[in-house]
Amino acid sequence: MARPWSRLGLVAGGGDLPVHVAEAARADGRLGAVVALKGFADPARFDSASERRLGEIGAILKDFEAAGCDAICLVGQVARPDFSQLRPDLKTISILPRIMAAATRGDDALLRAVIAVFEEEGLIVAGADEIAGELTAKPGYLGAVRPDEAARADALRALHVAGVIGSEDIGQGAVACAGLVLAVEAQEGTDAMLARVAALPETLRGTPQARRGVLAKRPKPVQERRIDLPVIGVSTVEGAARAGLAGLVVPAGGALILGADAVARAAGAHGLFVWITDGDDGPA
Amino acid sequence: MARPWSRLGLVAGGGDLPVHVAEAARADGRLGAVVALKGFADPARFDSASERRLGEIGAILKDFEAAGCDAICLVGQVARPDFSQLRPDLKTISILPRIMAAATRGDDALLRAVIAVFEEEGLIVAGADEIAGELTAKPGYLGAVRPDEAARADALRALHVAGVIGSEDIGQGAVACAGLVLAVEAQEGTDAMLARVAALPETLRGTPQARRGVLAKRPKPVQERRIDLPVIGVSTVEGAARAGLAGLVVPAGGALILGADAVARAAGAHGLFVWITDGDDGPA
Repeated sequence: MARPWSRLGLVAGGGDLPVHVAEAARADGRLGAVVALKGFADPARFDSASERRLGEIGAILKDFEAAGCDAICLVGQVARPDFSQLRPDLKTISILPRIMAAATRGDDALLRAVIAVFEEEGLIVAGADEIAGELTAKPGYLGAVRPDEAARADALRALHVAGVIGSEDIGQGAVACAGLVLAVEAQEGTDAMLARVAALPETLRGTPQARRGVLAKRPKPVQERRIDLPVIGVSTVEGAARAGLAGLVVPAGGALILGADAVARAAGAHGLFVWITDGDDGPA
Repeated sequence: MARPWSRLGLVAGGGDLPVHVAEAARADGRLGAVVALKGFADPARFDSASERRLGEIGAILKDFEAAGCDAICLVGQVARPDFSQLRPDLKTISILPRIMAAATRGDDALLRAVIAVFEEEGLIVAGADEIAGELTAKPGYLGAVRPDEAARADALRALHVAGVIGSEDIGQGAVACAGLVLAVEAQEGTDAMLARVAALPETLRGTPQARRGVLAKRPKPVQERRIDLPVIGVSTVEGAARAGLAGLVVPAGGALILGADAVARAAGAHGLFVWITDGDDGPA
């Protein structure tokens, strides 16, 4: 179980998720300090944030120490850095060899190494879902559309494949349609994968007029779940809609839903289902 | 071992490979008839070919029977058909249910079902490499460039990942760079996968000035090897070159090399290695 903590240092990458987490921590009276990572997060989106580069881990630790933080949350999109352009501070230099070694094994390996650095400094690492519990995907559906039998089979196939590639620390997503795996996600990201599905011949995929196929996103089976949980938002639904998919599926507790109401509305507007499965609601 | 046969019926899809196989069978005195699949193969590229649609399996069988064929080779690129647009002849109608059922399981399952139809008609199914033996990838290198230690490690990682996705009947290719899996091939094909690697941030991949990363192609571990072996040609090398890769790797006997001399020249011109591994020449 998560250890108790009282004051959070938030390291914010790109996207809306860090803003949600900061608001939740503030509402909770536990927000200590926000560091906006330069090139990824806009500091103006936070009430008060310092801006730091990826290579300033020493400075980030000092920011959080000055604010009395005993916990840290790393959240938002961050691209893999060009280590030769990092301009590391002294603390970063001291940990860089093991970070770089881990980076060659996969994203999860890299993130685990980063987390270990903060834990060695005595900080508790909190997951975004621990701070903003309403973001956690709960079993059921968002919106009114439900998968038919073919879509449920595609959902299970896509979840299986996403698990297989996740076991190799490759990626978190896959698309299946009529049993066939159309696309597997690696470093290009979900949006690019969905755009590629939209470009496949129509014989292989669905269309907005006749939706077929399912996007699955899930954590890597062995991944550090306090960081880098898959995120589903309105843009995910819209990308799936453009790809002609019938819907998307994530495991309950295994994804963050960014704006559940807006996701449900977008899904309804496009006629897609959003299925959050707890594993007990699949076909027999 | 392959059973002996004397007269070949060639079913030609797209690309140069069917032309090579037809020439090899003719030189051998064993070419019976060529069927160019409409929409994929140009009949003018063959000395004498009839043109048939995918849905004309009955007519194709009659063409081959009239030519006295006792063997068949299916070779060249063919897209998955829109079954609703197939206009099947009577023979095709009779086998369509099991073809369509197999199609939902993957490309290998689909091709096995097609092969079974021809075998039930008493035809021997011959692999392109059996007819045009010079196309088979033999252990060693094409061109003068050799992989360094990092590239050899990437080659083994990419081969491993291609095997994992092949076991799921998803695809035959993957790209790894500095240990990280950049891309995994599904229905989009190798060219699209390489284009996607070229579009990744330069921090993740090589460049023509500083080549890094390796494309691996390999047969699916359990696949029907008489059909759909991976094909490496000049265009594969050029796609890998544009993606900044250091080279490509295939297993010996597990790929067809279309124009080994031209592939070696293209690899040399771009500074890429082409490594055909027999599994004994990897790092200890």
